[in-house]
Amino acid sequence: MFTILPVKGGLGVVEGFFCDGVNAGLREGTQPDVAFIRSDVLCDVAAVFTTNRFQAAPIKHYQLHEAGFQTNFVLMNAKNANAMTGKRGIEDIDTILSALPKKLGVHNPLMSSTGVIGYPLPVEKITSAFAKFDFDAKNSDAAAQAIMTTDSFKKELALKVELENGNTFHIAAICKGAGMINPAMATMLCFIVTDADIPKEEMQPLLKQSADQSFNTISVDGDTSTNDTVMLLTSRKSSAYDKEAFAEALNMLTHRLAMMILEDGEGSNKVVAFEVTNARTKEDAIKASKALSNSLLVKTALFGEDPNWGRIASTIGASGIECDEERLVIRYDDLLIYSAEYPVLDKEREAKAFEIMKQKSFKISCDIGLGSAHHTSYGCDLSYDYVKINADYRT
Amino acid sequence: MFTILPVKGGLGVVEGFFCDGVNAGLREGTQPDVAFIRSDVLCDVAAVFTTNRFQAAPIKHYQLHEAGFQTNFVLMNAKNANAMTGKRGIEDIDTILSALPKKLGVHNPLMSSTGVIGYPLPVEKITSAFAKFDFDAKNSDAAAQAIMTTDSFKKELALKVELENGNTFHIAAICKGAGMINPAMATMLCFIVTDADIPKEEMQPLLKQSADQSFNTISVDGDTSTNDTVMLLTSRKSSAYDKEAFAEALNMLTHRLAMMILEDGEGSNKVVAFEVTNARTKEDAIKASKALSNSLLVKTALFGEDPNWGRIASTIGASGIECDEERLVIRYDDLLIYSAEYPVLDKEREAKAFEIMKQKSFKISCDIGLGSAHHTSYGCDLSYDYVKINADYRT
Repeated sequence: MFTILPVKGGLGVVEGFFCDGVNAGLREGTQPDVAFIRSDVLCDVAAVFTTNRFQAAPIKHYQLHEAGFQTNFVLMNAKNANAMTGKRGIEDIDTILSALPKKLGVHNPLMSSTGVIGYPLPVEKITSAFAKFDFDAKNSDAAAQAIMTTDSFKKELALKVELENGNTFHIAAICKGAGMINPAMATMLCFIVTDADIPKEEMQPLLKQSADQSFNTISVDGDTSTNDTVMLLTSRKSSAYDKEAFAEALNMLTHRLAMMILEDGEGSNKVVAFEVTNARTKEDAIKASKALSNSLLVKTALFGEDPNWGRIASTIGASGIECDEERLVIRYDDLLIYSAEYPVLDKEREAKAFEIMKQKSFKISCDIGLGSAHHTSYGCDLSYDYVKINADYRT
Repeated sequence: MFTILPVKGGLGVVEGFFCDGVNAGLREGTQPDVAFIRSDVLCDVAAVFTTNRFQAAPIKHYQLHEAGFQTNFVLMNAKNANAMTGKRGIEDIDTILSALPKKLGVHNPLMSSTGVIGYPLPVEKITSAFAKFDFDAKNSDAAAQAIMTTDSFKKELALKVELENGNTFHIAAICKGAGMINPAMATMLCFIVTDADIPKEEMQPLLKQSADQSFNTISVDGDTSTNDTVMLLTSRKSSAYDKEAFAEALNMLTHRLAMMILEDGEGSNKVVAFEVTNARTKEDAIKASKALSNSLLVKTALFGEDPNWGRIASTIGASGIECDEERLVIRYDDLLIYSAEYPVLDKEREAKAFEIMKQKSFKISCDIGLGSAHHTSYGCDLSYDYVKINADYRT
């Protein structure tokens, strides 16, 4: 028995962690563009990175550390991805991190970047932030603002977990991502901190499964970036821990942040769950539900609020999975849309389908009828605004 | 030695073939929506169909025939795909084809459909066309008009082939397709007729390789339809044939029609060749070039005319092929855009890149530098109009 409750304060609620964000001139205006998270103790760290073969310099820099290393400092910046920048990209990170004030006593400091690919980091602008930071602040809001790119709102969440014996721990995260999101976890950054007394060896597997059930089930546009990072740091300032409670809180946190990314999908107006059931294999279920969440014709039909189930069926058929039109059943929420017995959508059911599609979120479920495997992916519609944002975007 | 020359007249120039198209009320207005191609002799036939598992009824109907069957009649309609229509879909085809005038002496008549999925064919409307057809016409224009859906122009081409000995034959085609086009040959229909004296056993392999080098290299939106069909019929009214000349004429015909589909890509403003060279394997070259032609972020950057090569690099990295940023070289036409030595696009090269991207067509080439395999896919940009057409489309 345990309870998990959302609390205000973002990263600031977690004991031992400090954070801030300031504008260092990487973007115009006053919105922060450089941020840090630090801890007053050394933290164990777990991380999941992009599957893109061209990993950005900060990811390569992370991987230069020995397995099991500890850290107490992570620096982040927006507007420049430090990707496809060669050796200079890693040297720039070292230059920047070496300029951190000595009094902080940073150990194995890390860096994480998001923005445009192929330009060297503006080293002096970034280090100019160090004089502006309040290194003892718990300014989670400013840190969450600093990592935003095309995001239209900041993404931040904190949970308090109370165990049966009354002991508590916290877990909190800031996150960014709105476009280039795909089931293989594309341009998104998520920094999770906790004071739970989690055993070191449980961190990486728990983080991996949590990313799989959250960030890896969502798609805005099917592209996968060079910089994706989900990182977990623990200060262990609370003596409390329970594996089941921690896993559930972590999964709630990452799932909710993933839905926030989707709600903020570039030009997105609605969030749709694509549930595939009774597929022959798990691979088939994943393949079909990801094909649905990535199909341009499905996404534009969602935007047009057109219950054109032929595009759903056609996408399933084209996905390469085992399927049979005699067995396929398609539902929108609980409404039967297609089965071999009722191939024609009559006026009454069509009217109901139009109603369902007007909602801000709903479920499209496809029963393949050939097995028992299932998978759900989450996607959004494709609007004029997606095209506008991505034709114009060049941060 | 042989010469291949374009000639006017579409399907009508090929000896032995007749065609017409009329409006039978499947769409509003006067544009034809039902068409036929017939021959006054029995034709050998070869065909390539969609890879979608939910093949439409006309494709299943075709496949009910014994291998090596001959035909002298193909009926086509727009506005209704006769897909996901179960047994009734095939029965409707039989009903319709049985109603053809007896005097025509049709043998193994075929049908081909395009339009919306999941509604039964309007049988009576379609058979009402039979009283309106001129079965002795060579009205290729009307037939090409009849199979259009979101196409903004009709697609028709005829070639005259003159062999060294002065003998000639003709090859001609009508074709439709504008959206739902992907490298696996999606919603497109193409009917090719010839009077060449081509040996029966050469028809299918020649048609297959020709579709592979044309329709299977283009992508508008990465979706694959239930109805795709490329069909070749021969009347053998000419005694002329030369395998090399025929293959070249067939490839010219299908490649040109494929480019017409891309030029007519829904909302498309430009055609781009994505050339991948020096990949480790042929599979890698195909995978990378198709990933580029299907990437939403690449397609919107093309629309925005933004030389944002980071999206090209990121898409290559995400495609799952073997690659190395130290070896990758990206060019737009002949302009060097990225190599490890020149990662930063200076102002001068960037200005040139903007000029290149303003063109109606250009080439993006990616040298992977790890082998010798290459492949070129063709794609187009993604505009507001694509979203508009596909949010509204419901034929």
